Formats: sequence, structure tokens, C-alpha cells
Amino acid sequence: MNGAESLVHTLLKSDVDTCFSNPGTSEMHFVAALDRIPGMRCVLGLFEGVVTGAADGYARMAGKPAATLLHCGPGLANGLANLHNARRAQTPIVNIVGDQATYHRPLDAPLTADTEGFARGVSGWVRTSMASKDVGADAACAVQAAMSAPGQVATLILPSDSSWDEGGVVAEKLPALARPVAAPNQILQAAAMLRRGEPTLIVLGGAALREGPMADAWRIAQATGARLIAQGSNARIERGRGRLALERVPYVVDLAVETLAKFRNVILVGVVRPTAFFAYPGKPGHVIRPDAEVSILTRAEQDPADALARLAEELAAPRVALPDAGPRPAAGRGALTPESVAATVAAHMPDQAIIVDEAVSYGRGFFPLTAAAAPHDWLAITGGAIGCGVPLATGAAIGAPGRRVIALQADGSAMYTVQGLWTQAREKLDITTVLLSNRKYQILLGELANVGANPGRTALDMMDLGNPDISWVKLAESLGVEAAQANDCERFSDLLAGSINRRGPFLIELMI
Amino acid sequence: MNGAESLVHTLLKSDVDTCFSNPGTSEMHFVAALDRIPGMRCVLGLFEGVVTGAADGYARMAGKPAATLLHCGPGLANGLANLHNARRAQTPIVNIVGDQATYHRPLDAPLTADTEGFARGVSGWVRTSMASKDVGADAACAVQAAMSAPGQVATLILPSDSSWDEGGVVAEKLPALARPVAAPNQILQAAAMLRRGEPTLIVLGGAALREGPMADAWRIAQATGARLIAQGSNARIERGRGRLALERVPYVVDLAVETLAKFRNVILVGVVRPTAFFAYPGKPGHVIRPDAEVSILTRAEQDPADALARLAEELAAPRVALPDAGPRPAAGRGALTPESVAATVAAHMPDQAIIVDEAVSYGRGFFPLTAAAAPHDWLAITGGAIGCGVPLATGAAIGAPGRRVIALQADGSAMYTVQGLWTQAREKLDITTVLLSNRKYQILLGELANVGANPGRTALDMMDLGNPDISWVKLAESLGVEAAQANDCERFSDLLAGSINRRGPFLIELMI
Repeated sequence: MNGAESLVHTLLKSDVDTCFSNPGTSEMHFVAALDRIPGMRCVLGLFEGVVTGAADGYARMAGKPAATLLHCGPGLANGLANLHNARRAQTPIVNIVGDQATYHRPLDAPLTADTEGFARGVSGWVRTSMASKDVGADAACAVQAAMSAPGQVATLILPSDSSWDEGGVVAEKLPALARPVAAPNQILQAAAMLRRGEPTLIVLGGAALREGPMADAWRIAQATGARLIAQGSNARIERGRGRLALERVPYVVDLAVETLAKFRNVILVGVVRPTAFFAYPGKPGHVIRPDAEVSILTRAEQDPADALARLAEELAAPRVALPDAGPRPAAGRGALTPESVAATVAAHMPDQAIIVDEAVSYGRGFFPLTAAAAPHDWLAITGGAIGCGVPLATGAAIGAPGRRVIALQADGSAMYTVQGLWTQAREKLDITTVLLSNRKYQILLGELANVGANPGRTALDMMDLGNPDISWVKLAESLGVEAAQANDCERFSDLLAGSINRRGPFLIELMI
Repeated sequence: MNGAESLVHTLLKSDVDTCFSNPGTSEMHFVAALDRIPGMRCVLGLFEGVVTGAADGYARMAGKPAATLLHCGPGLANGLANLHNARRAQTPIVNIVGDQATYHRPLDAPLTADTEGFARGVSGWVRTSMASKDVGADAACAVQAAMSAPGQVATLILPSDSSWDEGGVVAEKLPALARPVAAPNQILQAAAMLRRGEPTLIVLGGAALREGPMADAWRIAQATGARLIAQGSNARIERGRGRLALERVPYVVDLAVETLAKFRNVILVGVVRPTAFFAYPGKPGHVIRPDAEVSILTRAEQDPADALARLAEELAAPRVALPDAGPRPAAGRGALTPESVAATVAAHMPDQAIIVDEAVSYGRGFFPLTAAAAPHDWLAITGGAIGCGVPLATGAAIGAPGRRVIALQADGSAMYTVQGLWTQAREKLDITTVLLSNRKYQILLGELANVGANPGRTALDMMDLGNPDISWVKLAESLGVEAAQANDCERFSDLLAGSINRRGPFLIELMI
């Protein structure tokens, strides 16, 4: 058995059965092993950003890691931006990068690069398998590392000789490391803060944003008068009818500061102190009050569900019903506006839909306006590296088969990883992409206005996606995805409902 | 004057007047400065790999660096693969990366990443401007560093507060550092080797591949019986009628070893010892004989033109005419084959065309078959990171206006940075893309066969770009580039000639 074969067997034993791949020459023995050994679903991406973003979306839904298969340092480099998003999402990924043979690396052949160096910035765990006998054991460690709470990118670099040499040894699955729980004093400190009766904010993130812990958080809020809020960017929120309608810390700094200004007491659950996405002259970096007292209920690695349940118990908070979300919105009518688009999506969203949100500026209001839709999961861009939406949708559809994915997708961001549409077509994934075609980097026009500039031609040109306009219908069709254009809500409704009632991907170009 | 304004003024004073950009929020003051201060041509790319690859193509032709404008660590990450290629091409690039404000970085906001860490692997020079007063001086240093022989990527990281704070100081252009010349003993050692009368190979790369130094190399070869060859991957070769028809070290290892087997004496001119692109079990890493004696005429930083002229003089090599390249090929007829496609390109190539070669497996024979075409420059992928062709063509057209660019482009590679077609349309660049649509990763099928595998469905699927087939005509049109399909040489001839006789970009989908 060669190293590559031991790798595939070990991954399968460790319950990793999906591999998003973009192979090259140095991975041929890995490819041959995937070919010979049944059990691994291999999904080709035509660009590495698709591969890594899909691995992120997959794990957010499947709750376990996929493997990637990338080609050398530059292949990894192409996947880094979405690995950055995965790092911020705390997503488990077994990130496998084929590389030059151990003895070929010193020759500095053209494709040789600092693969480990590229990996470090996005990975919680990096290892290079230096011999075929180590590959299996290293792979089992990589899976365990990826799954270590709260989840992380584990990068395994596989020199080609470690892959092709005989002497591979299959490793058994390593036990999952138990997730640490909050210390008693963390629970008591939070409870003490809540008992003061002062305005208190509880900021939730990570695994706290599932149905169970959110119900406990609601009990706590009802018993103490505390206000609940989610951090700004979240990997996955369970929401919709019958679940808690949670606001998020606003993206716009002034709004965030205003929203949080009354809270001198802040409890953090699996999140760091909320910050502005960017610094602005004269504006604060932290968006909670500078004099706020902060209590950390759980750190990132600690189990927030356990902590919220214990906190509710400590406070003897009674079980209470969640507030009713109000009626399910009716589809919008007439002109396309952020509100009418959101209403239309909310009206048509099937039960257990997966919403992928890279709507950026146009879609800031989509989140609150869909709270009364059917129960769904909401997956957002977490690290600010645009170009995650198309791949996330691709991976989520594979990680949660049978559920419709609706990707709310800004045009500028979609261009970064547009190749992912092809994978959606090949794999016949049930994804509806709602492409928000405003033909500009709208978010930057707002930011430029904040700078106080009266923009001239040069600046406007750098934020303009028109000249030429991109035809998203043609672009999708060229990659095998059926598509159509909508200029009003009625047409959008028809297309959206139609796409949900059929199998496979569809793209709706919304001319907003 | 703020830091951003001092940056733009300094770049212009240092003769950097083109900026390939993909800005984000943290670069808004830089954008505003570019807007206010006339003189910089700003070219938008819809993905950072387009930006960095275009900066590479620009400098290969213009002989001076462009600036880039990238957004934070992840934006840089998206541009790394083509910066890797630029590093291997020894291309000068002033790579400017906007980033979080110095005081915001410790807050670890979502988009915060290890920007310097990402930059190191591709840059010969990295600096973060920590205050507005330093930005001008740092920018002048970056230009000087980029231009230091043989040329390199100089990465200047610009925190947003260094950009917006007042106190910017414009810096004068720093003097170009003189290119070192070969030491006398390097000339004498090479001359002594050549005087032995044994089979001797002279391997040329970098600036040796221009008309002047190649003529001197030919004098040396004629006087001594040495054989000339170029390294495998080259940033730019001046060739075509009236110039030297130089072979390259073959990509296929066995062929390279066979070609070079008879030379026990090897002289390196601006190149390292030729290596196999990848290691293969049982095959050598170096492709020259292991017992070869190697003489280094010039190291990378030393001037090869000077050294070849001095070596020719030392050998008293008479000036001789270059061998005639033979008749200009006639356009191919009938079926599309590598030979007929090459002949058709060679027949139609206008004087001073720029050929961008990312033809990969199908196009390996294009190079020798175009030696008798009109004089032209040949720009190839240098670092093996596919996805350089579309951006290189884009940048080359801007760096050498008035010359037709013909991009010989494999389909799999084109997908990586397909967004560049939009920039070609927007800037109305004179680029003909000959898209070699074979709907598979042909090179990998060959490599898999070498592995001895009899590929099954899983392996074949990972190398198959069909299912669904990509429509390159639709894809190009969706991004604003006119396009048409050719199934035979006659149609290809018509389309190629037509595209050359009009302005702006055109894509020919060759159904090979």
C-alpha cells in the first residue's frame, strides 16, 4: 500500500467521505488512490477558491469536515481567501495540499513555493507528511485537529513521494476531543451580572446560534431583561418560524454603536468583543461602550449550549414560549427593492431551506425581513473575503442533500468564484442563486462618500461593474446553469417558485 | 497632504503610472488620492489574480513596474498565484496592499489576516508603512527594490491610517541600482570551457533572451560549436524572422534528459541548473547529466547581455549572420491539429505581435512551429501556477500599446482568471484569445497514465471539463468580449485575420 492509499483509507475510517478537489501532477497518486478505493465522493472545482469555499459550506451543514485536494503552494494560495472565511467561521476542514517530492524541493523547480508559509495564516494545524509510513497517522491527526472545538482548518501537506512510496499504514480514527465546558465561575460571574438588573447585552456566536441554546438564551433574557444579539457575521444560524428571531450587531459602525450604547454590561458567548469591521477616522474600534464591563460566559473552544443551559438553571429561568414571528411575508409586488426582494424570498422559502448570504450592501435588510419565513439555516460570509457565496452554496447543497439552497448573491462578489456555477451544474445541485445585479461595488461607493470625496471618473470607474455590463444569464448558461432575468417582483416570484419546484441549479439575474 | 496622496505623487515621480486595482474599504483614501491627482492610469480587475497577472504582463513588456492595489490579506491571497509566476519571471511589481489601521489590527476584526506572512513567499521586499510620514519614502524604496536586477515583487502594505493621516511627504525617485556585471573569472572560466572543444551547452534565460544578447550567443556558438538552448519557462523571448530560433529545455523529463545527455559541459547564463518540473519515481531531478561540469557565466542579478558580449570578445568570435528561419508558414487547412493551429497562428501573426503562451499540453509544439513568423515577443507561464494567460495578455496589451496580443490559451487554465476578459473588454485592448477548448485537463490525463493507472470514473471525472461543456463563446460574450467558434483551419484563419484587423478584444473558441 502506498502513502496515498493509506491516506484515503484513513480518511474514510475517520468518517471523511467527501473530497473537494482541483488536482495537479503532484497529486496523481492521490487521484489514483481515490479512483481505486471506493467510498469517497470527489467533487471537482475549476478554481481552488471554489474547492475551499465548498468545503466550508459542506462542513457548516454536515457538521463534519470534508477533505480538499489542492495542488502545491500556488493552488493553496488560490484557496486561501475562502480558508480565511472558514477560519473565521471556525469550520472544520481537512485541507490536503499535494506538493513537490521531499527530495525535489531543494532543486527549487518552478512550481516550488512556501506551501507551509501560505498555510499558516489560515490553519490551526499544519503538518507535512515526510514519509509514506506517516501519512495515515498524520491524516487521522488532521481530522482530529479539524474537529477540535470550535473547529479549524487542519492543513496536511503531502509531498508526492510520501504519496507514491510503498509502506503506507492505515490509521484508525482518533477519538474526538471532548469539548471543554465553561468553568463554574464563568457561569456565576455572568449570573451575577444579570442579577444586577442593569441593561445587559448577551452576544451570541458559533454553536450558540442553534435552536436549543437560543431557546435557553431566550429563557435567560426573559428572566433577567437582558437583550440578546448575534455577532455580525455568523457561520450558521437556525431561524425562521418557531425559532428565535435574533438581531445581529449591525455592520455600519455608527449604527452598531447606537444600538449597543445603552449596555454597560456585556456577556460574550463564544465570541470576542464586537469590533467595527474596519477602522474609520474618529470612530471607535470596539462597538460596545468603552466603559462596558465584559463577562465571558464561554470562550471559543467552550461549549456554549452547555453554558447557556447551566446559566438558565443558575438563574432558575422558567421555560417560556418564543415570541411569535408574525405572519409569513407575502411575496413582493412591482418594483424590485431590498424590501420587496426579501419578502419574495421569505414567501417562497421552502421548509428547511439553506440561505447563503453574500448579498453585501443591497441585502443588509434581508436578514430581519426573513425572520418569519419557514424554518431555515442562514449561512453568511464570516471573514469579509468576498467570493464565498457561490462555493458555500455548492458545499452546503452537498452537505445537506434534499434541502433547497437559496444563495442571495451580490454580483461583484460572485465574480470572484464564478467557476463554482459549473460545479453546481455538474453535480446537479438544488441551488437557486438570486444574483443581485447592480453592476457596481455599491458598498465602496458608500465608503467613498464617507471619506468625504466627491468622486471623479477614476474613482467611479474603480467601483463600476458596468461598461461592459455582465450578462449573468449568459454567464450562467455558459457554465451549464439555466438562468433567467427578472425586472420585477412578479417575474422574480415565478422564477423563484419554479426553481424550487424542480431539481438542479438555477440562476435568477435580478436587475436591481 | 495625507499618506495616500504622498504615495500617488511618489509613484508618479518614480515613473510608475499604471495601477492595476481591486480596491476595498481600507483603500478608499488611496482611491480618493488616485482620483484627485492626475497621471495614474487605473485599471480595474474583478478578481485579484487578474490584477497581479496583469501587472506581470505589463512589466514584461513595459520594462518598468506597475503598481497594484489590493485589499487586505485575503485580497493579496487571491493574487498570490500570479505573484508566484511573477517571482519566477523576475518581474518588477510594486505590490500595494491596503490593510487594517495600525491601531485596529490588534482587535482582530473579521478581515484581519497575516498580510505580511502571505506576502513573504512571493516578494523579495516587504514593508508595512506604519505612519503617513513614511509612506512616500517607503514607496520610493519599493519602486527601487522592484527594479533591482533582475527584478522582483516589492510588497508595500498600507494600513488605512497611514493612508488617511495628514503628514504625508512626497519622496523623490531613488536612483536605479546599477546592475552588477559578471566578474572577470566568470568570463574566463566559461571561455576556458568552450575552448576545450567538447560538446558544450549554453543555457540562456532572463534578459539574455533579447535580440542583442542572443546574437552574441550565436557568435559564441558559431565560433566554438557550443549548443544554445533557453530554459523551459521564460518571461519574454524576442524571436521570429531575423532573430535567433532558440529551442527550450523540454518540459517532458525523458525528452529533456535525452536532449541534454551529450553535454558534459554546461554554461548557465542567468538561470539555475535546469530541473524537472516535478519529480517522478525513478527519474532524475536535474535534467543535465549528473556528472556535468557547470560554469556560471552570470548569476540572476548579473547582466547577461554584458557577459555574453564580453565572452564573445574574449573568444574573438566573429560577427556572423543568424541562420535563416525558413519561409513564413502558410496557414493550416482542414482539421485543427497542434501543427495546423500553430501554422495558422504563425501565418497571421502581425509584425511585433505579443504571444502569450498558456497553451499547456496541446500547445507544446507551438513554439518551434512559430519560429519563422514575423518578429514577435513570446511570453510564457513561468511558475507553473495556471491562470496566468488571460491576465498576462491584459497587462501586456497595456504595457505595449499598438501591438496585437495573441493569447494561446488552454481552457482549464483560462477558467482560473476568466474575469480578465471583462477588463479586456472595458479597456478595449487589442487581444485575440485563441481558446483551446479540449474540455479536459489533458496534461493530467498524461500524468495519470505515467502513474500506470488504468483510470476509472472517479479519476476521469476529476480531469474532465465536460459535463457540462463550457461554452466559451457565451462566456466571453457575457463579459463583453466578442467571440466565435472555429472547427477547422479555414474558419480559424478567417476569425484570426478578422480579429487582427480590428480594434479591441476577440475570443476564438477552437474546438480541438
